[in-house]
Amino acid sequence: MSNRIITISREFGSGGRTIGKEVAAKLGIHCYDSELIEKIAQESGLAKEFIAEKGEYASHGGWLANAFSYGSSYNGTSVQDYLWKIQREIILDLAEKESCVIVGRCADYILRDHDNCLKVFIHAAADKRAERIVKIYGETMAAPEKRLQDKDKKRKAYYHFYTNMEWGEIQNYHITLDSGVLGIDKCVDIITDLYQMRDDSRCRR
Amino acid sequence: MSNRIITISREFGSGGRTIGKEVAAKLGIHCYDSELIEKIAQESGLAKEFIAEKGEYASHGGWLANAFSYGSSYNGTSVQDYLWKIQREIILDLAEKESCVIVGRCADYILRDHDNCLKVFIHAAADKRAERIVKIYGETMAAPEKRLQDKDKKRKAYYHFYTNMEWGEIQNYHITLDSGVLGIDKCVDIITDLYQMRDDSRCRR
Repeated sequence: MSNRIITISREFGSGGRTIGKEVAAKLGIHCYDSELIEKIAQESGLAKEFIAEKGEYASHGGWLANAFSYGSSYNGTSVQDYLWKIQREIILDLAEKESCVIVGRCADYILRDHDNCLKVFIHAAADKRAERIVKIYGETMAAPEKRLQDKDKKRKAYYHFYTNMEWGEIQNYHITLDSGVLGIDKCVDIITDLYQMRDDSRCRR
Repeated sequence: MSNRIITISREFGSGGRTIGKEVAAKLGIHCYDSELIEKIAQESGLAKEFIAEKGEYASHGGWLANAFSYGSSYNGTSVQDYLWKIQREIILDLAEKESCVIVGRCADYILRDHDNCLKVFIHAAADKRAERIVKIYGETMAAPEKRLQDKDKKRKAYYHFYTNMEWGEIQNYHITLDSGVLGIDKCVDIITDLYQMRDDSRCRR
């Protein structure tokens, strides 16, 4: 049987990444989020030339995550398309090598033909998320709810651009959870139990 | 503490009603679907006058469910508004009297201020649902997938008309489950476990 993967898509501030890390820890598998995927990209040499060329811009503030900030092209391909390809290869490669949790990065779409993948979406009410990003992420701003909207707008646009599908649409996920109501711990338990229950999992659209 | 309620909203053919009944049976509580709610309405006298007036139309094929088929008014109120009010009262009353499962009927919206309500949405891929409505519901037709779309379109329109919200939008539910991938039994287990886990449940929007 293929490696068993969990993909976690999430609204900003809903604790999706925390949930991903805790699920992975409970299951004894790795959790790959955008930071780690970027690190892999850098170390793998896939992006060495890119980083060398883009220099300060590439290494500033999560270059993979900020793909749309780069307007120019690289080697005849647009920068964001190049970055998309790198990340896609990394994710396919990870799923080939090991059971793991992957947070964000359109992994649910990239692994749509994977035959053993649980697709999860985490969300919460705006006030809960605003509280979280200020208290836990340490963001201090006058309008945290505006920040939430902007981040999710970007995620939605990025996702739609590369997948032609709608980020956050119920039918794209096997299970979605309101972490603000259920709590982080319960979400972790539900996902972990489900992962362990699944003998015959499908990740088809 | 208030009675504990589960509301189940579902795509047509996803087994939502079956899941509701099995969850209720496991938990030793009642499950109220549109059939039962109509029966209550008839027995309660709330709709006696209406049925007496509408006669054959009222008793044909689930009059509550077919609210939009009645174009005329009743006692100065449109028929569908009248039926909406009846069903709303019944649902509020049920939640007041007992812990239970309620399938459909915009119950998630009607009970939005209830402080102990788990809101669930069940869905499945169109091919799974088409298979189900033919095999299990005994529907025989040339285009089951068209039937699915029509039923869900009506549900969506009905929901939006009375709630001003979007039926099937992730943020409206505490948990959503793909019954076609997870299977009916797993959905029942997940919901039952969650219901039993919840000490401090909220049903807020």
